[in-house]
Amino acid sequence: MLDMPKSAEWQEGALRLLDQRLLPFEEVVLTCTRVEEVFEAIKTLTVRGAPAIGIAAAYGLLLEDVGGLSDEAFHQRCDYLISARPTAVNLEWAIERMRRCWQGAHNEGAQNGAVRGELLLSEAVAIHEEDKAACHAIGDVGLPLVKAHPRLLTHCNAGSLAVSEMGTALAPIYRAHEQGVKVHVYVDETRPLLQGARLTAYELDRAGVDCTLISDNMAAHMMAEGGVDMVIVGADRVAANGDAANKIGTLNLAILCQYFKIPFYVAVPLSTIDMETRHGKDIVIEERDPAEVKTYAGHPTAPKGVAARSPAFDVTPNALITGIITDKGLLSAPFDAALEQLMRAPQAGS
Amino acid sequence: MLDMPKSAEWQEGALRLLDQRLLPFEEVVLTCTRVEEVFEAIKTLTVRGAPAIGIAAAYGLLLEDVGGLSDEAFHQRCDYLISARPTAVNLEWAIERMRRCWQGAHNEGAQNGAVRGELLLSEAVAIHEEDKAACHAIGDVGLPLVKAHPRLLTHCNAGSLAVSEMGTALAPIYRAHEQGVKVHVYVDETRPLLQGARLTAYELDRAGVDCTLISDNMAAHMMAEGGVDMVIVGADRVAANGDAANKIGTLNLAILCQYFKIPFYVAVPLSTIDMETRHGKDIVIEERDPAEVKTYAGHPTAPKGVAARSPAFDVTPNALITGIITDKGLLSAPFDAALEQLMRAPQAGS
Repeated sequence: MLDMPKSAEWQEGALRLLDQRLLPFEEVVLTCTRVEEVFEAIKTLTVRGAPAIGIAAAYGLLLEDVGGLSDEAFHQRCDYLISARPTAVNLEWAIERMRRCWQGAHNEGAQNGAVRGELLLSEAVAIHEEDKAACHAIGDVGLPLVKAHPRLLTHCNAGSLAVSEMGTALAPIYRAHEQGVKVHVYVDETRPLLQGARLTAYELDRAGVDCTLISDNMAAHMMAEGGVDMVIVGADRVAANGDAANKIGTLNLAILCQYFKIPFYVAVPLSTIDMETRHGKDIVIEERDPAEVKTYAGHPTAPKGVAARSPAFDVTPNALITGIITDKGLLSAPFDAALEQLMRAPQAGS
Repeated sequence: MLDMPKSAEWQEGALRLLDQRLLPFEEVVLTCTRVEEVFEAIKTLTVRGAPAIGIAAAYGLLLEDVGGLSDEAFHQRCDYLISARPTAVNLEWAIERMRRCWQGAHNEGAQNGAVRGELLLSEAVAIHEEDKAACHAIGDVGLPLVKAHPRLLTHCNAGSLAVSEMGTALAPIYRAHEQGVKVHVYVDETRPLLQGARLTAYELDRAGVDCTLISDNMAAHMMAEGGVDMVIVGADRVAANGDAANKIGTLNLAILCQYFKIPFYVAVPLSTIDMETRHGKDIVIEERDPAEVKTYAGHPTAPKGVAARSPAFDVTPNALITGIITDKGLLSAPFDAALEQLMRAPQAGS
């Protein structure tokens, strides 16, 4: 088993989060005992990555005696946590599961707060465990692609730190590495918050995977040199037609792949697929503080008065996506039909 | 007249360079009195921008009693300065002019060192003055394009700081701004050395041009939003077929422009056109210290042991270029024929 960092863990009634803002220089674990702390952790990217924030939010709901809440207070808490970040669907999805569990407990007449709390804890643990299983399944589904295209490029962090373990985009890479496939990964640094430089380079390096850090704007040059066989990224929300919202810069890469005729894959668990959103244009793109773009690792880079923008995500249209690697198999175009079939299957509601 | 910083000036027998590494936070002028200082200034990007390093090198040659040098020592000094940076052709071009001047002085029997020195100084001043005139001409040639496409995006710094004044890519923007055209410029920050954030944002802001700083990887999103009418960049070397080497990330933008059907222009003085280089693939791409990608302003951003790469330039194939804006007119495809005609014309040798 590879050595992998853990982004979120439930321990002794508290949520422990590895503070991803401080990586790779400090490994600090934050212990959250209040819901507000979890909200802040999600908002400030202490914990980030679509599946990981879903897991953190599910555990976060449990804090401060969730079993004793009124129905209204419970749903308020749910809405509050969802509002921390708008783009990743996993957050909504995880909270929705917790709401159904809460409702189920009421329907079954669980009047006792402690019993309701236990049921909710079981559900959060199930979300966490299913995510682990999904990552492993994504690794298996994507493995043949990595074997066929061992020189990869990835963006942002869709690794262990973004999920429970193994990652989404990185899972097939880890799997191939475990099996002795000689892979090489170009890691985009991923401005403005440098998740590639700080997190992906950190976890690939730690696991012994051969990788090279580049600036985001170097991807085209590396492709022109012939050093990239395949691009693989995660996503924060996949619409019903296959359009994918992911970290800003992903669209850029997908367009480069089309130009250079390089396959472009998106790797996601089913929890990232949002059948309620028909098209990518309906996805709300979070605009973050422009100060992020005017600083680099906390140090200013631009004149004080200059305007800046910091959209956190972009949307890659389905036509630029070669395939979607899910825990239930590899999907090809037309994605609307493939997703419809997949998501209406019995296991999808689990 | 707009307020513009000066990258290089000759004053009282010394070369004064605005230290571009410290901008926008400190405006420090470095006074070079030794050739080695000029070499270091070019190598470390104290002075950067293809035309500006040509000007700096021409003045740099004059230091330490150039008139008194032996023929061999003079040419050694020329070779030494050229070796500071391999990609920008203007450096070679300027030194070549100085060599011809040196040869001319000898042919005319200028045995006196002081006389030779004066002739060389006149030539360096001519290079500088012609560059100013070329920038103004580029501004005029590009003006109608900016009027037709007032929402622009630019990369790196091809402004006043990169040349003598006005810039190449920025000259038509400054011209339009002076004439009251309402322009908006997206400025790519341009990792790893952040010339966009530090220099372009600085000089546009100083001149009162409306601009917004973005990370390099946000360009595709801004184009998808419909906020970019045109991309305009400079170049460090344009081959005889129109392929253009420019700051890493330029190829990326040219591919995005093709996808979004946005015109992509390269603005250069004739001194940047290298008819000896037939194709872009023959251009030597400078690989800089990978530490540049793993740090910002000396602060680490990635795990210590991780590999990185830092190619300083990439090559945009002519097929992706809508037009080349020169001081002698706007060129369209086929660029090989257009460049051949332009460069063989009498004024090109001036």
